[in-house]
Amino acid sequence: MQNPILNPPAKQHQHGGYSVSEVTLANRNNGTLLETLHHDVTPIGAHYLLNHFDVPYVHNALDWKIAIEGEVAQPFSVTLNEILKQATVNNQTRTQRVTLECAGNGRANLAPRWPSQPWQVEAVGTSDWFGMPLKYLLENTALKSNAREIVFYGKDKGIDGGNIHHFARSLSVKDAMHDDVMLAWQMNGQPLLPQHGFPVRLIVPGWYGMASVKWLNKIQVIDHSFNGHQQTGTYVYQKDKAENGEPVTSIRVKSLLIPPGIPDWSSRKRLVQPGVVTLTGRAWSGDGAGIKKVKWCCDDVWQTATLHPSTDKYAWCKWTANWTATPGKHILSCRATDANGNIQPLTPPWDIAGFGNNAVQQVEVWCEAY
Amino acid sequence: MQNPILNPPAKQHQHGGYSVSEVTLANRNNGTLLETLHHDVTPIGAHYLLNHFDVPYVHNALDWKIAIEGEVAQPFSVTLNEILKQATVNNQTRTQRVTLECAGNGRANLAPRWPSQPWQVEAVGTSDWFGMPLKYLLENTALKSNAREIVFYGKDKGIDGGNIHHFARSLSVKDAMHDDVMLAWQMNGQPLLPQHGFPVRLIVPGWYGMASVKWLNKIQVIDHSFNGHQQTGTYVYQKDKAENGEPVTSIRVKSLLIPPGIPDWSSRKRLVQPGVVTLTGRAWSGDGAGIKKVKWCCDDVWQTATLHPSTDKYAWCKWTANWTATPGKHILSCRATDANGNIQPLTPPWDIAGFGNNAVQQVEVWCEAY
Repeated sequence: MQNPILNPPAKQHQHGGYSVSEVTLANRNNGTLLETLHHDVTPIGAHYLLNHFDVPYVHNALDWKIAIEGEVAQPFSVTLNEILKQATVNNQTRTQRVTLECAGNGRANLAPRWPSQPWQVEAVGTSDWFGMPLKYLLENTALKSNAREIVFYGKDKGIDGGNIHHFARSLSVKDAMHDDVMLAWQMNGQPLLPQHGFPVRLIVPGWYGMASVKWLNKIQVIDHSFNGHQQTGTYVYQKDKAENGEPVTSIRVKSLLIPPGIPDWSSRKRLVQPGVVTLTGRAWSGDGAGIKKVKWCCDDVWQTATLHPSTDKYAWCKWTANWTATPGKHILSCRATDANGNIQPLTPPWDIAGFGNNAVQQVEVWCEAY
Repeated sequence: MQNPILNPPAKQHQHGGYSVSEVTLANRNNGTLLETLHHDVTPIGAHYLLNHFDVPYVHNALDWKIAIEGEVAQPFSVTLNEILKQATVNNQTRTQRVTLECAGNGRANLAPRWPSQPWQVEAVGTSDWFGMPLKYLLENTALKSNAREIVFYGKDKGIDGGNIHHFARSLSVKDAMHDDVMLAWQMNGQPLLPQHGFPVRLIVPGWYGMASVKWLNKIQVIDHSFNGHQQTGTYVYQKDKAENGEPVTSIRVKSLLIPPGIPDWSSRKRLVQPGVVTLTGRAWSGDGAGIKKVKWCCDDVWQTATLHPSTDKYAWCKWTANWTATPGKHILSCRATDANGNIQPLTPPWDIAGFGNNAVQQVEVWCEAY
């Protein structure tokens, strides 16, 4: 019998009912609870979570080492303890509030869909990350002149498409040296949770979550383009398999609204009383230029929402609007435009693996006096 | 058009592919990550989560009030601040380590299955809960002599089966007065997370999770049997719909093993190297008498595992075993027996809504040198 893990059948697009594998992934990988979008900072544990492999079981955080190797004058390794000490002594610590989103968010809303984590709209969250600029570490590392990319390895290991590997992603030297890329060891004022990368991870603000490597224990400087599985075997926009495709990088402009009223337990459809209902939601974009406008819609009538200032450069904005609900069925939506003029599409952009789906959300609401 | 929330169609058992509603629930309701069973206490945010309705957005915990009403000499309400103060001054605070499991855990492994949260095996977790015995509050409340049950209401409100209600569950006066039933306001040394019942909830050790009402804001003493939706419309064992059924109460004996080796991303099948592999898992039972024995199995050969002592009366035990993995495909299982002689069944016990499925877990592992 051939081992199906190392010799997997080719994946096929899915129609209709979801498979056991998709449900297993959905049970493991947490989406945020949309009603927690009321919070500027997503409560611990309600932040979305997408882990490819198993969460490493780490006993001693302070002994944790990061090896720096490859195209550097002198390979070395440094303990997290030493990083913390140096960052503190040299005034390099900082906190950034960052909205992260999974690149596969919205995948399940494409037809046909790629068999993977079946996100609908919930793979987003905002946290206060504490750590230091990665740049500070890299500036104290003598990169050779041929250094082209920097590869970040996590301790998590597994198989995808028959390929055994540690989760690893690269950034160009220029992107890695960006002021805002961080090594983070706290989330919302406490040590990272095991499932969010304890004891130390990368945070690449503005990029989809795959770039923010968890359980970081190796930084490798290379003189070529990294072709690891998580860099070129996935996280690439492709209209079809023949296309070379474009790497997935920054987060596309997007917005969500908190489903108003009260939910039906299983369908999650909403019931509201007739009258004025305040709609609240969030909008974000990864380009760092911010959100310019949010419109909201009831039954194909679009109106401008009130946009509240973002609490940090890479954090989502809050928006609100007053809706006068009248009896019957309604579909509510919202649509953001960022400062660069990017606007959410009304229908999902096609991508074979369902990456970067920033189409407007649709919320079914029934209005009836009760 | 008739409102489908208030006039829902009858639910039907499902075969084959999972529906959009089931996937929406799976994306919302977190299962634990099986590899976190290495921890005696489930990391914050990795504890399973099953919320029927929306998580209430609570601004001010200390103003939170619990109303005590019904068959009492004098109805009253008390703030959480006052409860904290009295519990501290009168030395009534305590911490209990409790394993909780969702009554619907394993539902998806029945065929046909009930359309609801499609738990496979992951709806379990163990936390250190801090608060005070509920008994202390009740002893300071003059219950009338006709008091029969005590109903606990949460702030969360929604619809199930066309029935609008706050989540509410009752206990008999005797069960509610049990020494170990708690009002809890901390979990693992920090305030409850919003999604776990902030600012205060009930913890009913040994019972499936539905009894541990979150966002507790009303305690009603009644002289009859409570027939609220969450008491009699669900959480009842029934072989068929004609049966009156038995209420779901204490957690049936169960065990899990941490899938060994490394995972395939999407199928979660496992790859291990040939040789000795230490298997680790957890076993628990809600009867409070503890676990007596765990056996583990590879390919239908059962052996006794090493059972480690539980760290608290209501907390799961760890078990370990050494398995010598040989090339090929294997199915691993474990099976616990509690001190009362209850033993896990090999196949899922039939229940129409998939409650109390404590059948042995099966983990597919491929062994091959790599």
